[in-house]
Formats: sequence, structure tokens, C-alpha cells
Amino acid sequence: MSKILTIGREFGSGGRELGRRLSEELGIAYYDQEIIREIARRTSLSEQYVQAIAERKPTFSYPIHIGHSFYPSVNQPFEQTMGIYEEQTRIIRELAAKSECVIVGRCADYILRERHPFRLFVYADMESKIKRCREKGPEEERLSDKELKQKILGIDRRRAKYYGLYTGHAWGDKLNFDLCINTTRTVIKDIVPAIARLF
Amino acid sequence: MSKILTIGREFGSGGRELGRRLSEELGIAYYDQEIIREIARRTSLSEQYVQAIAERKPTFSYPIHIGHSFYPSVNQPFEQTMGIYEEQTRIIRELAAKSECVIVGRCADYILRERHPFRLFVYADMESKIKRCREKGPEEERLSDKELKQKILGIDRRRAKYYGLYTGHAWGDKLNFDLCINTTRTVIKDIVPAIARLF
Repeated sequence: MSKILTIGREFGSGGRELGRRLSEELGIAYYDQEIIREIARRTSLSEQYVQAIAERKPTFSYPIHIGHSFYPSVNQPFEQTMGIYEEQTRIIRELAAKSECVIVGRCADYILRERHPFRLFVYADMESKIKRCREKGPEEERLSDKELKQKILGIDRRRAKYYGLYTGHAWGDKLNFDLCINTTRTVIKDIVPAIARLF
Repeated sequence: MSKILTIGREFGSGGRELGRRLSEELGIAYYDQEIIREIARRTSLSEQYVQAIAERKPTFSYPIHIGHSFYPSVNQPFEQTMGIYEEQTRIIRELAAKSECVIVGRCADYILRERHPFRLFVYADMESKIKRCREKGPEEERLSDKELKQKILGIDRRRAKYYGLYTGHAWGDKLNFDLCINTTRTVIKDIVPAIARLF
């Protein structure tokens, strides 16, 4: 059975960087945005749209049909969201079957549970997440610390909802992970060799 | 500044074994029962008594004096417990100042926070904790799985109360640790070199 490493992460904690560096250190594949691209290709939806949907709770839209028809039409947004979830699950399973790899986010720890992946969770305190966001993203430049904090909390709230819906587990609960790494006082690249060795 | 490693752990998770092995790997001191022994020596209380008190919430005993005296006597059990806490804090600080070391439990992560120790938390699922307890302790032999689970939960509940009282933080909250290790699927000695490297 091939070795799989999954990474859950708080926004701004450096989980993505850790994943990328670990894949380089281990010489194995790295999947993150590639999954979105592949869903877009298979579903003929735009990458932007898939991205927006893929980490959000599906919306039930109740069609209003009274007086129009005896048959309620299919709940389109919900169906489409679920379709994207299903495609994502299929792709993650295919990728994991193909070769050893690192997969960031997307409930891969849960989707691949029968393969017993090594499950990492990466987190940090708010101050260091704000700092990391500022170092990374030019789009964060115009935001105040307070706005950036709201953005971080909002993204993680969506991740928690999505993870909860999909897995039935609490997002970030340490019992669902093999190792939880606090990157508050850490330079990511310095810890890569030791983590790779654990894996 | 000397390097300090503190270990919080769920009962039965193998945290103590990990601490001992890490100290051997790193060639630094290991403190656990030694702290209790030293408190007993300094306070002239028995080791058993200190052990019983040291990880328990202090009990307020309200003396009943009405009709006996105008002056309520000192709340003896509470004073003694607090005395043991203070002595423990002093000893932990002394030990950390003396040399690099591993300290298991006793809120050392909090007591030594100004020295920025590397803070580990070790945990596992209930099934593996029960298994580990059975492998270790002859005293657990007579207990059923249900009784052993109750014992584990009881000990951890006391640890959580003690930690909460002392530090004001939630026991086992990952944000108070640099690394949380799930030992459910782990052979402790196999992970020691990688953890030592992280430290």
C-alpha cells in the first residue's frame, strides 16, 4: 500500500507550504490546486466556480413551484455542489491509488481513511497567521489587522462547516490526526526533515 | 538559555515513556517522580501524600466554628495543597535553571513559559490507551475494560481540573502546545529520533 500524507490546516498557518516542502523532501507528488483543475476539466465548470463551491456547505434552494407544476424541479445548486463533492472524492481516491502523495485539505484524511494516511494538522496563533498572510499575499496588503483576522476566521469557519458536513467530525479535533503542528514559533522549512522522517 | 522539553499527556498514551526515551536520545535530564520525591523531602510529607495532592484540585474545607470560637482556624487542607503547589513550582524552576531537561506533567509548560520550552502533548484513542495500560501495569489486570476506561477518564479529568486551576487554560488545547502526537497507531520508540530532531 502506498504512503499518503494528508494535511488539514488553519488559514495562514503555513500548512500549504509545509505540504509542498514535505513532498519535495520525500520526492512524492503534491496535490492541492491540481484537484480543482481536474474537477473543472471533468465537469466543464470553471476553476473559479469549482474553487468557490468545493469548500463551502451546499446550499439547499427550495424551488417555489406552487401553482406552476405538479413536479418540483431538481434542486440545481445543491445537486451541482454534491456533484463537485463526488467528483472531488473520486479524483482524490484516484490520485492516492496512483502514487505516494501529499494532499492538502479537501477532507482527504477522511476520504482516504481506509488507506490509513499519515494525517497532519497545521495550526498557529492568530498573530502569527496574520503575519504569515501579510508576507504571502499581495491581496492582503490593503486589509487592516482586524479585517485580516475576520477573513482568516471566516475561511476557517467555512472549512469547519465543510469538514463537519462531509465527515461528521469536528474540524481540527486532534484525535482525527496523527500529528498536530503549531507553527507559531516555527520556520516551516526547518521542521521539514524531522516531519518527513516521522512519516 | 537551556533547552527544556515539557510533556503533557493523557493517561495511557505513552507520554511518560516518550519523555524518558527522548531524554535518553537527547542526553539530557528527565524529571517526573523525582519532583514528587523532592517536594516530600523539603516538606517532610510522605511521597504518597504529596503524589495524591499534587495533581488534584485543592479542597476548600469550611471549618464549622459557630459557637466554638470567634476566630475561624486556618483552612488547613487548602493551605497544605497550595504549599505543595508552590514547592512544586519552585522545584521545577530550579531544575530547568540547572540543566537542559525533559519534564513530564505538573503544568511545567506553563510554569516555565518564560523559558519558551518545547511543549509536547501526547494523546491517543481510548482503545489504545486501555491496551497500553494493560501492557504496563499489573494493578490494571483485575479491572474490566469498562473499569479501566473509567479509571483513565477519572485521572484525566483530575489532570484537566488541576491544569485549568493552575494555568487558566483548557487542558490538552492544542494551541498551548508546539506539537501534539497521537500515539494510537505508534510504537513510541520508533518516533523518538524524529521528535528529538524537531526539538
